[in-house]
Amino acid sequence: MKATVTKSELLAGISRAVGALPQRPTSMQVLHNILLDCSSNADAIRLEATDMEIASIAEIPATIRKAGRMTIPGKKLLESVRELPDGEVTLTGSDNHTLTLKSGRARLIIRGTAAEDYPTLPIFEGVQSRESAPLIPGSVPFVVEAAYLKETIRRTIVAASKDENRSFLTGASLVINGERSHFVATDGHRLAVNDFTIVSKQKKLEIDVIIPLRILTELAGNLPGEGSVEVQVGETQILFKFDGGAYYSRLIAEKYPDYQKIIPKALAKKIEVSRQDFIDTLKCVSPFSNPRTHALFLSIKSDKLVVTAETPEFGEGHDEVEAEVNGTPMDISFNSHYLLDGLKALTGDKLTFELGEKISPAVLTSGSDEGYKYILMPLRQ
Amino acid sequence: MKATVTKSELLAGISRAVGALPQRPTSMQVLHNILLDCSSNADAIRLEATDMEIASIAEIPATIRKAGRMTIPGKKLLESVRELPDGEVTLTGSDNHTLTLKSGRARLIIRGTAAEDYPTLPIFEGVQSRESAPLIPGSVPFVVEAAYLKETIRRTIVAASKDENRSFLTGASLVINGERSHFVATDGHRLAVNDFTIVSKQKKLEIDVIIPLRILTELAGNLPGEGSVEVQVGETQILFKFDGGAYYSRLIAEKYPDYQKIIPKALAKKIEVSRQDFIDTLKCVSPFSNPRTHALFLSIKSDKLVVTAETPEFGEGHDEVEAEVNGTPMDISFNSHYLLDGLKALTGDKLTFELGEKISPAVLTSGSDEGYKYILMPLRQ
Repeated sequence: MKATVTKSELLAGISRAVGALPQRPTSMQVLHNILLDCSSNADAIRLEATDMEIASIAEIPATIRKAGRMTIPGKKLLESVRELPDGEVTLTGSDNHTLTLKSGRARLIIRGTAAEDYPTLPIFEGVQSRESAPLIPGSVPFVVEAAYLKETIRRTIVAASKDENRSFLTGASLVINGERSHFVATDGHRLAVNDFTIVSKQKKLEIDVIIPLRILTELAGNLPGEGSVEVQVGETQILFKFDGGAYYSRLIAEKYPDYQKIIPKALAKKIEVSRQDFIDTLKCVSPFSNPRTHALFLSIKSDKLVVTAETPEFGEGHDEVEAEVNGTPMDISFNSHYLLDGLKALTGDKLTFELGEKISPAVLTSGSDEGYKYILMPLRQ
Repeated sequence: MKATVTKSELLAGISRAVGALPQRPTSMQVLHNILLDCSSNADAIRLEATDMEIASIAEIPATIRKAGRMTIPGKKLLESVRELPDGEVTLTGSDNHTLTLKSGRARLIIRGTAAEDYPTLPIFEGVQSRESAPLIPGSVPFVVEAAYLKETIRRTIVAASKDENRSFLTGASLVINGERSHFVATDGHRLAVNDFTIVSKQKKLEIDVIIPLRILTELAGNLPGEGSVEVQVGETQILFKFDGGAYYSRLIAEKYPDYQKIIPKALAKKIEVSRQDFIDTLKCVSPFSNPRTHALFLSIKSDKLVVTAETPEFGEGHDEVEAEVNGTPMDISFNSHYLLDGLKALTGDKLTFELGEKISPAVLTSGSDEGYKYILMPLRQ
C-alpha cells in the first residue's frame, strides 16, 4: 500500500472517522482501529471506523501508488497526523502491517493489523464501489441538500433525551409520507420539530423510523456544507451517502410517542422579541434560578418581559427585555436551560414566542428558521 | 454601602480576588466569601479574599457614595457580574447584608454576611491605608518592575514540583544578597533559575525564602503589565503591593536544597536551533514516546538534531531539525514533557542548547530571556 495525500485532508478524514470509534471498552480490540483502504483504481484513500452500531466512511483525495488495506489504531493515527508539518504526506504500508507516514523530514511508523481482522459490513463495499442500486435492502433512496440536512439535525436534536432508560427518546423521529414529513426530537419537557423537505423522492416513499442521537451528532458536526446527501432507510438501518464519505447507523427499533397532540394549533398570546437581548436577559438572571429546578419566572407585560429567579440561600435576579406583546399580561415559569437551548437553536435576530394558558406548551419560532418549532412545557409554579 | 463602578473593572477585580478563595472544603464557610469594603474617603472598592495561606486584595476604581463593608459568596458574585451588561454598575449594601447590583434594567440581589465575621489580617488594613512603614514585621521593602517580576515568575515556576510530599519544592526559592540574587524552582528533574534584578533596595537586604507555587501562579497570571511592585519579605510571610491591589502569602518554612552545584559552569557542546522548529519536531515525535518515561532520543549530528521515540506496541517516530552544532556528535535522552516545558518557557526565535557528558545536566537559554537558564537532567538510557 502506498499513497500521497495532503496533511489537511488526511487530518480532516481521520477526524471524521474517529467519531465512530467505540466510546466504551469493547471486547473487540480491533474496533479501536481505523481501516485504511487503497484500491488501485481509486483516486481516494478510504477510511472506515465502526463500533458496530454506527459507522463512518471518509474518502480522502489521494494519489494511489500501490493498492493495499490495513487497520491502524484510530486515536494514535489522529494524534500522529495532527502534529505533522503542513504539506504532502506519503503513506506506506508494509507486509507486517505497519504504516509509515512521511512528511518533510518526519517519519512516523505506526503498528497496525491485517485488514482481514476488521468486521467490514457488506454495504460498505457498495459505498466504495459507488453502486447505484440501494445498498440497504428494501430501501428507496431519496436526496436532500447537505447544508439543509445538517442544519435541520442541529436545531432538532437539542431537544432529544440523553436518558438511556428511555432509549426511544435518545434519537430523532423521521417521518416521511404523503401528508407530512417531519424531523422530531423530544425529551418529554421540550420538543423540536422541523418540516422535512426532500429534493427528489419516489412516490412510494413511506418512512417512520427513530435515528440514534449518536449518528445525528456526527452528521450535525461533520456533514459537508454544500452538495447533496443520498439517504437510504431500511427496516433496521440507515445510510447517508455524500461526496467524500458516508455515515451508517442502526435504527432504534422502538415506537416513537405520538407527539402531534403536543404541538399547539393556535395560541392566544404572541410575543416578538430580540433573540440576543432575550438570551442576555436569561443569562443575567439564571445564576439565581433554583439549582434543582432551574426555574425562571416570566412576567409578560404589555411592552416587555420581566424575568426573575430566586434561590433563598443565594439571592434573586431581575431583568427585563423589550417585547411586542400581543395578548393579555400573564405570569409563567420555565426551566432556564431548556428555554436557552431553544433560543440558541434558532438563528434569526427576532423570534416569536407564542403562549396559551399557564400550563400549555409555548412555541418558539423565527422567520429565519423556516419550518422549525421549539415547543416548551412550562413549569408548574 | 453604595458605590458605582464599571462592569469590566468590577469583573477584573473579582476575577483577581477569587484566585485566593479556598480550593478545598474548609470548616470556615465565610472564607468562601469575598470581603467588599467601601471606605468613605477612598476612590476604590476594596475586595479581599483569603484561604488563610494566601490572600488577594483588589482595588477597583469607584465612586463611593456611602461607606460600608460586607462579605459576599465569591463564586456567586463572579458568576453574577460576568453576565451583567457592559457599562456602569451600582452596588448597594443593605443592613441585612444583601448586596444589590444594578445595571441597565438588571437588578441582582445576593445574600452575604456581616464583615465582622471575616478574618481580616491586620496587615491588610495597612495595605488599604497605604501606610509607608513596612507592614510585615522586620521586613525591608524593595521595589521591582511589575512586568519583569511577572515574566521572571512565569518562566521559573514551570520547573516547580507539584508533589505535596516534597513541600519544600512546591515553591520557588528567592535569594537576595550581596553576591547573587536568584529566583529558582526545581522538581529534582529540571531546574529553572533567573537572576533577580531589583530596582531599589537598601544595603542591608538579605533574603532567603521559599514562596509557595500557589501565590506565584496568581502573580504570574494577574500582576499588572506595567508599573512597579513593592515586595516585603518577613520571616514567615511575604507581601506584594502594586497599583490596584496586593498579594499576600505565608512562606514555606523549610530549607531549600543547594542547587548551585547542579548549575553547570562550562559545557563542551553548544547547539543553536530555531525554538519553534525544535518545538514542532518534538511534538511530531512525542506521540511515540514511552507513556511511562516520556523518553525522547536526541542524536546530535554536525548540522542537525535527529529526534526519535519508540513504544514497541504503537510504533516509532523520527524527525529532524537543523542546528548549528559546536562540538562532537552524541546521543542523549530526555523526558519530552520536561524538554518542551523549557522550550515554551523561553521566548526568543533562537535558543542555545548546551550539553556536557551523556549524564550531565543540559542547559537551555536564549538571548531574549536575559539571566534565565532552564537546566534539564538527561534520562539514563
